[in-house]
Amino acid sequence: MSQHKLLSGCENLIVGTIMRRNFTSVRQIKSVGDFHDFLLFSRRAKQNANLNRKMSSVVQPCLSMDTLNPNIKVLEYAVRGPLVIRAGEIEKELEKGVKKPFTEVIKANIGDCHAMGQVPMTFIRQVLALVTYSPLLEDPRFPDDAKERARAILKGCRGSSVGSYTDSPGIEIIRRHVAEYIERRDGIPADWQNIIISAGASDAIKNVLKLLICNVDSKEPGCMIPIPQYPLYSASLAEFGIHQIGYYLDESRNWGLDIAELQRAITEARKVCNPRALVIINPGNPTGQVLSRENIEEIIKFAYREKLFLLADEVYQDNVYAPGSKFYSFKKVLTELGEPYVNMELASFMSCSKGYMGECGLRGGYAEVINMCPQVKAMYLKAISAMLCPTVLGQACLDTIVHPPQKGEPSYESFMKEKSDVLNSLKLRAKMVADTFNSMEGFSCNTVQGAMYAFPRVTLPKKAIEAAQKEGKQPDAFYAFELLENTGICIVPGSGFGQQPGTYHFRTTILPQPDKLKSMLEKFAEFHSQFIKKYS
Amino acid sequence: MSQHKLLSGCENLIVGTIMRRNFTSVRQIKSVGDFHDFLLFSRRAKQNANLNRKMSSVVQPCLSMDTLNPNIKVLEYAVRGPLVIRAGEIEKELEKGVKKPFTEVIKANIGDCHAMGQVPMTFIRQVLALVTYSPLLEDPRFPDDAKERARAILKGCRGSSVGSYTDSPGIEIIRRHVAEYIERRDGIPADWQNIIISAGASDAIKNVLKLLICNVDSKEPGCMIPIPQYPLYSASLAEFGIHQIGYYLDESRNWGLDIAELQRAITEARKVCNPRALVIINPGNPTGQVLSRENIEEIIKFAYREKLFLLADEVYQDNVYAPGSKFYSFKKVLTELGEPYVNMELASFMSCSKGYMGECGLRGGYAEVINMCPQVKAMYLKAISAMLCPTVLGQACLDTIVHPPQKGEPSYESFMKEKSDVLNSLKLRAKMVADTFNSMEGFSCNTVQGAMYAFPRVTLPKKAIEAAQKEGKQPDAFYAFELLENTGICIVPGSGFGQQPGTYHFRTTILPQPDKLKSMLEKFAEFHSQFIKKYS
Repeated sequence: MSQHKLLSGCENLIVGTIMRRNFTSVRQIKSVGDFHDFLLFSRRAKQNANLNRKMSSVVQPCLSMDTLNPNIKVLEYAVRGPLVIRAGEIEKELEKGVKKPFTEVIKANIGDCHAMGQVPMTFIRQVLALVTYSPLLEDPRFPDDAKERARAILKGCRGSSVGSYTDSPGIEIIRRHVAEYIERRDGIPADWQNIIISAGASDAIKNVLKLLICNVDSKEPGCMIPIPQYPLYSASLAEFGIHQIGYYLDESRNWGLDIAELQRAITEARKVCNPRALVIINPGNPTGQVLSRENIEEIIKFAYREKLFLLADEVYQDNVYAPGSKFYSFKKVLTELGEPYVNMELASFMSCSKGYMGECGLRGGYAEVINMCPQVKAMYLKAISAMLCPTVLGQACLDTIVHPPQKGEPSYESFMKEKSDVLNSLKLRAKMVADTFNSMEGFSCNTVQGAMYAFPRVTLPKKAIEAAQKEGKQPDAFYAFELLENTGICIVPGSGFGQQPGTYHFRTTILPQPDKLKSMLEKFAEFHSQFIKKYS
Repeated sequence: MSQHKLLSGCENLIVGTIMRRNFTSVRQIKSVGDFHDFLLFSRRAKQNANLNRKMSSVVQPCLSMDTLNPNIKVLEYAVRGPLVIRAGEIEKELEKGVKKPFTEVIKANIGDCHAMGQVPMTFIRQVLALVTYSPLLEDPRFPDDAKERARAILKGCRGSSVGSYTDSPGIEIIRRHVAEYIERRDGIPADWQNIIISAGASDAIKNVLKLLICNVDSKEPGCMIPIPQYPLYSASLAEFGIHQIGYYLDESRNWGLDIAELQRAITEARKVCNPRALVIINPGNPTGQVLSRENIEEIIKFAYREKLFLLADEVYQDNVYAPGSKFYSFKKVLTELGEPYVNMELASFMSCSKGYMGECGLRGGYAEVINMCPQVKAMYLKAISAMLCPTVLGQACLDTIVHPPQKGEPSYESFMKEKSDVLNSLKLRAKMVADTFNSMEGFSCNTVQGAMYAFPRVTLPKKAIEAAQKEGKQPDAFYAFELLENTGICIVPGSGFGQQPGTYHFRTTILPQPDKLKSMLEKFAEFHSQFIKKYS
């Protein structure tokens, strides 16, 4: 067998083994020596002693751990980390008939509605089918409003094809619709030329963050992000070499932002970096809070005082459940505060992936960027032009969301029914999850005011913590692995999002369908009492 | 009027003015003072004297040219540069009824087939419609093979929805189909686990390039790219801070790669950087060559000697026209060369955007990465996981291309006819364009062996060069602007791709439909003789 074949055949074995361990272990593999030690300890490595010998003679790669981008070595993305990889392996084992204490893996780790049984919105899929395959435009079974949307989108496509490139910031008519959506939502005019459509909010966020990569007076730039946070931020900051300035959300005040804590964080940070921006996630991920208007005003004023570029991640703006909670956009509050706040630089992000749509796989989203210095904006648009354009079908999906059926149009009633069914169901599940964890010994869970997750705190026995340390794992990761192996439930440990030292949390979605969610919570409770017994 | 409104209202005016000038001017705007000078010279600035005063009191932005990512200031992407922006303005003027010496703008600047009238492949759009809107799976008007493809794709989607996230490297069944495609093409096994699906080849290319960002012994990494090159490469290298090592293609040998020139380039470069990788574009963009097998073998051996990671951009692999030209993948040649070349690190890229499909807007593509150090691969996969997943509809599009209708299936005949109609037409147009330019005084154009472009060389009179310098423009950019303003034809000046100093070229696509292409070439010839007269 050629070395090439042997190497690639075993590669995934090795990669899988590396990835399964907690990433702290991966970071410790710094030399070929470490790697060989690792292989020797691995049961599979004993079977592959031959491979070891061959590898040391073959592998003098151009690209090795020593010459790899150091930022990429460091970055982590827990939502798809080792637990999820292990969950995937377990799914395959179940398919092969391996006996387990459970019959399925419940992926409560990722905010993916359709994966958990939510049905796509009919209107969205009709418009997408119509723009994709034009004979359907003559099909009487498609409603007129969907056809009208499709024709308008195709008119904005060169050659009337969604297969053509579009302008880099997106199709003009869709950008205009986004501006109208924002105006309806906020009661404040929006300029379509401030709208940059993107392949999901993640791309838009990264494209703004990368503008900040600039050392001044030999200091790195810094960006404030909430702890706990959605790990796209920590991963992107690591990739870009931007210093991460974490500010703790206040668990005792339902994960609100405490200005004194923001102040503490930035004062500390100024010793080592130039703070440049402040990220707010509202509604929050993983924490599910919906910020009060007062809190938003305080944050804006803080950012003004500290001269920070505001990034408002508002992808869950449709997911607001708790009585008394209401979504206020940063744009609205900033504008209504008037001078001088109205001139602040603000980038606000929205996506097709969440809300009632759940179209994560289609990759649609936008940034609204206001008050950017015109020269910088020219550079930003230039950088975006080198990325060609966001996927046109993602743009079309976005259009249906910001330009949905209106009262009187054929699809209006069914659209509104589907939308409210989804949102009402999410509301019930949000309450179910928080209430259930709060009823369980050893857990405390803040109200899930919005978004798609609960972030309960769990008290772990000392013996469990010691067992975790022995395995080189974070205690909450240790807990999560045991949960997975014993129940098939896959969640993400709080250490993946950040938390106050000495506390342990995990993020579970609220997305499994109600019956499955109920059963999942029952299994969870059962597992937890057994875990406590085992480690008492 | 609030400053906010005034500023944003005029923003696009200013941005447009900045962008329209040749980017050398943009790079010279380094201070607010420069910017004010620029405004003063602009006719619009005189109308906006008020704006200037307001701006200096308003604008103390957090993000200014001084604190903006310096790499973003420098990067350029000529394919969507100032000429294209001007072409867009002219289109709007024509819509408004402004009288011009022409009635339409011909966008011969960008490799976008559908924009120029090419019709999408029926089968591709049927499969996409079927995965998007599931009631169509019961529709008897869709052929069974399309339905079968759609069902297989949906089976690989969580919740059977293309709206769900997929595994970050793409849906497994599609990665397997890609591996089978490669195996059929090359006669050499491919491992599906080496396939990383991406949102277009551009994303895949950048994800590999960014692995190289690592200074060693205080020297930047360097990457060899052809001159002329597709400016995604220069833009990405600029963005990543990787040193660009240009190697000139040999115009006298139909744009072949001369190993002596590769050697010259790398020897020079070693003084200032650590060369890490070598990019080959085959078939070539903008130059249209299809490399001979011998040339490919020489290149591989050179890369081996110099310890370079090979990046083979093969997105035009279906676009081969000239008699005697044949596409050989780098993977095939490298493998068949045997030891030691068979163990070299190679990333090969393919896309849905070109070929006979032309689905640029859907953003589908892949990288096949072989022989990567397993630890580095783990890091690469981790970095990709933080990007969530490529658009599922782009993945579905890719699937139809690598797993097309087979002989005996219902769609086979029509699929093969549509495919060969497109490719035959491109072949004719490739010849038409090169022959026509070669028949025109002052032009010489190499055979368009493949891809979608011609890159003719044009001789410019001395007076024209002087006039260009007076306007602060590159001579070929000056020529291109005059062409645009007088004929509506939009091409990209050679300076956007790089060329031997003292030579002038431009890239035109071969994509306008045959009648329009013929008429475009006639106008071009007419313009050229008038231009020569004017500047003699």
